[in-house]
Amino acid sequence: MAKKNAFYAQSGGVTAVINASACGVIETARQHKKEIGKVYAGRNGIIGALTEDLIDTSKESKKAIAALRHTPSGAFGSCRYKLKSLEENRREYERLIEVFEAHNIGYFFYNGGGDSADTCLKVSQLAEKMGYPIQAIHVPKTVDNDLPITDTCPGFGSVAKYIATSVREASFDVASMAKTSTKVFVIEVMGRHAGWIAAAGGLASDADIDLPIVILFPEVTFDRKKFMATVAAKVKKYGYVSVVVSEGVKGDDGKFLADQGLKDAFGHSQLGGVAPVVANMIREDLGLKYHWAVADYLQRAARHIASKTDVDQAYALGKAAVEAALAGKNSVMPAIIRTNDSPYRWKIEDAPLKKVANKEKMMPKSFISRDGFGITPKCRAYLEPLIQGEDFPPFTKGGLPNYVQLKNEPVAKKLNTAFELK
Amino acid sequence: MAKKNAFYAQSGGVTAVINASACGVIETARQHKKEIGKVYAGRNGIIGALTEDLIDTSKESKKAIAALRHTPSGAFGSCRYKLKSLEENRREYERLIEVFEAHNIGYFFYNGGGDSADTCLKVSQLAEKMGYPIQAIHVPKTVDNDLPITDTCPGFGSVAKYIATSVREASFDVASMAKTSTKVFVIEVMGRHAGWIAAAGGLASDADIDLPIVILFPEVTFDRKKFMATVAAKVKKYGYVSVVVSEGVKGDDGKFLADQGLKDAFGHSQLGGVAPVVANMIREDLGLKYHWAVADYLQRAARHIASKTDVDQAYALGKAAVEAALAGKNSVMPAIIRTNDSPYRWKIEDAPLKKVANKEKMMPKSFISRDGFGITPKCRAYLEPLIQGEDFPPFTKGGLPNYVQLKNEPVAKKLNTAFELK
Repeated sequence: MAKKNAFYAQSGGVTAVINASACGVIETARQHKKEIGKVYAGRNGIIGALTEDLIDTSKESKKAIAALRHTPSGAFGSCRYKLKSLEENRREYERLIEVFEAHNIGYFFYNGGGDSADTCLKVSQLAEKMGYPIQAIHVPKTVDNDLPITDTCPGFGSVAKYIATSVREASFDVASMAKTSTKVFVIEVMGRHAGWIAAAGGLASDADIDLPIVILFPEVTFDRKKFMATVAAKVKKYGYVSVVVSEGVKGDDGKFLADQGLKDAFGHSQLGGVAPVVANMIREDLGLKYHWAVADYLQRAARHIASKTDVDQAYALGKAAVEAALAGKNSVMPAIIRTNDSPYRWKIEDAPLKKVANKEKMMPKSFISRDGFGITPKCRAYLEPLIQGEDFPPFTKGGLPNYVQLKNEPVAKKLNTAFELK
Repeated sequence: MAKKNAFYAQSGGVTAVINASACGVIETARQHKKEIGKVYAGRNGIIGALTEDLIDTSKESKKAIAALRHTPSGAFGSCRYKLKSLEENRREYERLIEVFEAHNIGYFFYNGGGDSADTCLKVSQLAEKMGYPIQAIHVPKTVDNDLPITDTCPGFGSVAKYIATSVREASFDVASMAKTSTKVFVIEVMGRHAGWIAAAGGLASDADIDLPIVILFPEVTFDRKKFMATVAAKVKKYGYVSVVVSEGVKGDDGKFLADQGLKDAFGHSQLGGVAPVVANMIREDLGLKYHWAVADYLQRAARHIASKTDVDQAYALGKAAVEAALAGKNSVMPAIIRTNDSPYRWKIEDAPLKKVANKEKMMPKSFISRDGFGITPKCRAYLEPLIQGEDFPPFTKGGLPNYVQLKNEPVAKKLNTAFELK
């Protein structure tokens, strides 16, 4: 087998640990220089391949690549760019293969969610047909935790740890103030379609530390009356309550709760979050003093409080992707297979992309408590291992996490033909 | 000197490290059992003293008290309850002294901001007049960093570290996404009157890691045109920008920018934060894709990313307060005196409460860059030492910070007379 280069790209929303997967890919590839030439990365994800804007990772020092393991975000840039179907835009796939061929790329490592698994599969299929076979391996990533087969998706465990920690800390804060001040704390979390991240808020309370938490899941239609009764009951019992609300919560009209048609004094419509909406409702219905927070990017970028389990898995999946390629595999995604809950044990198995692409893993109904506002023991047993362990990044003398910014030097173009992105 | 008990209370908004001061007070008092009897804490702050609702901290184990050092929030409860002036409500002060006398309390440790320094002073003065002298010592605390004399206020350094870390992490995230998605990230931080916390956002960028950050200080009147030009310039140069906005920013009409008179679809007025207001303006004026976050309580409760300098100082001030009492001092506040910037060196000196009460330390104008959107080297030299060092709390096997919830057993009442809070 002639020695081929590898291409690696990051796709979609970035996470606290997607660079740990990149680190796993690049470090493992560097250990197999006989089989794998250089690892090129796509500048801003797949766009970098389409526009022949490749990054030469071999120009990065060993130390810089190692630092990816503890650096959040996408070190090569990511993008929100979904390739259309083969029927709709075959030229995009052909262009990818053209660029790969020009740069002698035989391995395609695509680090992303469901859409990129699908792209990965199609590239592999079309390349085969076009007579330039590419081993396409998908490396799972998504804070939404919605990929099938794999026990979890790298990125999710760290968001879960951040949210569980933050809800615990804010609950302690509100408990201190409740006598004369704030009684309700509302925090908005990500998860437009599934309540995985919202569920993680429930971990803040456990057998040792009992905290009143009410969760609003996107899976449960918002019932204002029932919600207020639940909030009021918690405040009566504990003196305060923390509310974890998913950005995706909808009312019985099917509309996002966040979508309140807010207008400013000039009548301009304003976009807000769901946390202030819920907080305002609590003020109207119960007259309780509240505070609210919207974690937004902080939750998925918070490498400083990443889950060690998550970091380890992210790295291991990157490594496994290269090992799968070396073993001659194609159209697969290394997946985490859970073999035990407590203590958590897992291994990696390669799943065929056909079984991964276009399938969304939703949160089981059995994970939501009967009243719709909490998590079940089954959910807890699933979630708990994913936030286990700490993996603090190194800090500078100045007291800040010491993250790496790569040089990201370009690879000289060979095609030099323009390609217009749709 | 007959052995007297001590009273300790937490006042106002709690912080990540106010319990470290409590730990310093209690552990030091326990080391001087010949001079100090029991340490009673006010349940929910000074309200606990007024209503004779005292907590017997001697019932807590050595381990539990030690754990206060790494537990955020106010372990005995705090309150927002400002005692009126002596002229307006003398009976409150008399009641305090009555309760102190009933429980043989000779030391009053009050842990709070400017208002509680004032209360502390008055209690000491009135007690003297009433023939039941109390040694009143104020322990500084406030995330607002607005007390005079002391180099900084415990609580602030940890908020500063949280904000600097979060802005760094979110900036890395946005940088990855900017090519096709979010270009502007807006984060709202605390600080209604002074821009200390907003300034800390500027630390995210330093000599090694260059990040585009625009700060909106409460000290600088919001100029929409100038702001948009600055945002646009940063996006042009870097591809993205992070905006740190203080909740206290005002427009040239003198009104809070957050106060936009928002109304929902039913015409009900809604309270929002300033982050979505600024984000919406950016959408209107520049048409850039944005995300926004509101850290709210997360920033002051984030013990998991506390500054070691801050924790050390909080503990040392609690300890120094007891030592000052043992040395016979009265009406003082132990303060941090900076003796060197780099490396940071500090010592503790007792400041007379007369010089502390009712004086607010504002951020010097020389700390804000000429354009009004950044921090100066002078500001950086002041702030940097305050976020130095990490002091991670212990974590449970489950992966969550292991904070302590005290038993908070009540002291038997001796007066048993009702007292109505105003």
